[in-house]
Amino acid sequence: MLNITYLYFGQQKDEYFRKGMDEYIKRIGKYAKFNEKVLKPENLPDNPTQSEINAALEKESRTVLPLMSKSAYKISMCVEGKSMSSEGFAGLFEKVMNEGKSEIVFIVGSSHGLSEKVKKESDLCLSFSPMTFAHGLFSVMLCEQIYRAFTINAGEKYHK
Amino acid sequence: MLNITYLYFGQQKDEYFRKGMDEYIKRIGKYAKFNEKVLKPENLPDNPTQSEINAALEKESRTVLPLMSKSAYKISMCVEGKSMSSEGFAGLFEKVMNEGKSEIVFIVGSSHGLSEKVKKESDLCLSFSPMTFAHGLFSVMLCEQIYRAFTINAGEKYHK
Repeated sequence: MLNITYLYFGQQKDEYFRKGMDEYIKRIGKYAKFNEKVLKPENLPDNPTQSEINAALEKESRTVLPLMSKSAYKISMCVEGKSMSSEGFAGLFEKVMNEGKSEIVFIVGSSHGLSEKVKKESDLCLSFSPMTFAHGLFSVMLCEQIYRAFTINAGEKYHK
Repeated sequence: MLNITYLYFGQQKDEYFRKGMDEYIKRIGKYAKFNEKVLKPENLPDNPTQSEINAALEKESRTVLPLMSKSAYKISMCVEGKSMSSEGFAGLFEKVMNEGKSEIVFIVGSSHGLSEKVKKESDLCLSFSPMTFAHGLFSVMLCEQIYRAFTINAGEKYHK
């Protein structure tokens, strides 16, 4: 069974989004083992300078890099990343499994994104939209697309 | 005060997504009057033919077209539409208001989308993502972006 690892900085604070995530995680359970790991973002002042932001991203990369296992297919979520359709995303899952990999890792950064180091360590920088969505909402969007990918590959009715 | 009219086919069935929508609608209330109108999608058989789908879209267009007021700026949501950043979306709100319009209408179709007629009657076909999202989730995404647009234009902290 495929492992899906979801690494993200910042907690899911809104109860309704937590419930939405949990619903999709439950459904994903039919196809894969879902592991969620919440990481603590670095504290930043109210109006941080670019160098304060860079220092925080650097520290955050030291937290997340050891969790991105070498043998996994690693996807960093970045607004400037590659965009694809839900069918393309589902095809990517197939490709990864055909390569004999047993884990896909998704990495979502803090409100200032991810360091270049983390992006370079990833197999893919993926963008769902040129728009910025609330962190909690984005987690639901990601879990829904992962679930959708499995239903597409299984030829199920969820995705029309 | 600007009017935001949200016309969509199909009910918001999931309680957690309803709560997410309500939260953003409440926040939008600070900047605009939000009107939501739920429209009933046509019934279709389990595996509809293209002509059955077209007939349903045609009937649905007769429901929605009279609700798209001539004086409003009308935005149809279509996966193949124009994509933009959250800042670009916020700029669009400014542009519409500068043109002296007092209403923006958003139209979201049923699971088979919208007819060409509805798209032609719109000022813009807008896409949030090349990916397909669950209908209920998409409503939350739209309300969040509308709220975000107002905070961007007001120079508030929500959007970093």
